[in-house]
Amino acid sequence: METIKNRRSIRKYTSDDVSATLLNELLETAARAQTMGNLQLYSVVVTRDMAMKERLAPAHFNQPMVKGAPVVLTFCADFNRTTQWCLNRKADPGYDNFLSFMNAASDTLLLCQNFCNLAEEKGLGICYLGTTIYNAGAIIDILDLPRLVVPVATITIGWPDECPPQTDRLPLTSFIHEESYKDYTPADIDRYYSPKEALPENQHFVEINKKETLAQIFTDIRYTREGNVAMSASLIEVLKRQGFME
Amino acid sequence: METIKNRRSIRKYTSDDVSATLLNELLETAARAQTMGNLQLYSVVVTRDMAMKERLAPAHFNQPMVKGAPVVLTFCADFNRTTQWCLNRKADPGYDNFLSFMNAASDTLLLCQNFCNLAEEKGLGICYLGTTIYNAGAIIDILDLPRLVVPVATITIGWPDECPPQTDRLPLTSFIHEESYKDYTPADIDRYYSPKEALPENQHFVEINKKETLAQIFTDIRYTREGNVAMSASLIEVLKRQGFME
Repeated sequence: METIKNRRSIRKYTSDDVSATLLNELLETAARAQTMGNLQLYSVVVTRDMAMKERLAPAHFNQPMVKGAPVVLTFCADFNRTTQWCLNRKADPGYDNFLSFMNAASDTLLLCQNFCNLAEEKGLGICYLGTTIYNAGAIIDILDLPRLVVPVATITIGWPDECPPQTDRLPLTSFIHEESYKDYTPADIDRYYSPKEALPENQHFVEINKKETLAQIFTDIRYTREGNVAMSASLIEVLKRQGFME
Repeated sequence: METIKNRRSIRKYTSDDVSATLLNELLETAARAQTMGNLQLYSVVVTRDMAMKERLAPAHFNQPMVKGAPVVLTFCADFNRTTQWCLNRKADPGYDNFLSFMNAASDTLLLCQNFCNLAEEKGLGICYLGTTIYNAGAIIDILDLPRLVVPVATITIGWPDECPPQTDRLPLTSFIHEESYKDYTPADIDRYYSPKEALPENQHFVEINKKETLAQIFTDIRYTREGNVAMSASLIEVLKRQGFME
């Protein structure tokens, strides 16, 4: 509990390696996570080779952690292995569809978060790269992912060489609903978001970007409609190309 | 680490309640999970009322845990709250698209797994219901989920009243790939799946269902092509209805 309570994403790592023994122990234990029908619908690609990190970096918008971390893990939704098993066992697999992608993506994200908790408990620092689904097509090419395999999360791992302040969180009441969903009034929004908007670092972002509100930083700069629409289309193309939209 | 290593899904609970204080502490700590742009793209609906459990049960194919657990949590991908914030702050939100759904679903599943780890560390038993995305439309109606909110995972929680044996897992080498994906040969499939196929309980399933192989239990009974195709269509309809496919 204390590990999770005190966690922060770590983007700078010492030059110390993360041993294969430790990594394997963490991944093996992480695989105790719940999984659909106990099928374990995932694969993890381990990147240690600098040449491979250099190829992956642009897919993650050149965030420095990709090349700076001793290990990069790409967590992939994988119905290929299960499908191969079926084909080798006189069974007709019907997993080339969207529901199966979502089932595999769910299995994969649960494994990923289990792994993160275990790694942080051992003192490792991790950073979750949400960019994985933005450029999934490029990652598929680099890692040679076959049909029915799609990357859904990337984690950079190493021994921490920084201790950044913890980021803020919304109050619990903002995301809990008793029995049924109560939609938000303007007063609720003010109450829940004002503390975030009042943080000096957020006020600074608004100022240097010449925006009127913090929300505009998200809509106009960080996560724009134009970018989201383009990346939605390319993600759906990736799902089709990988055989998940038959 | 030991908690995760020894975990098993718990489907039978004592009549003891799970206090709101404990539940809130766990959910608040779970929200330390990584989240896109620190936006916390999720909501959690807490069900304690028996009448609500009775309405939810059919959406989960009447699995007895729904009515048997003191608490049922429905974890929802939520871009509604963030969108309301933007609309109240002169910002133009562009989150009514598939990428945004996937971002919110990812945030939600990481939160969910964090919560599961914390709950199990406190001695609670949990069961993950993968049925949530199969019948998302019914759950949306029951829980009054608005546009840009989609349920992606359900957890039943309570104090354990059973200690079932741990289920098997594939060997680590079956889902780890060094540097790039190595596809599976028939010999790999034999090596990785034979121990599972040899388990007495799995041989028993094959026998009582009059099947030839364990894989056929999955393809012909548990997760059929016909069912997957139908539920893929209904899940995509749900995403459209909730505004995530504009």
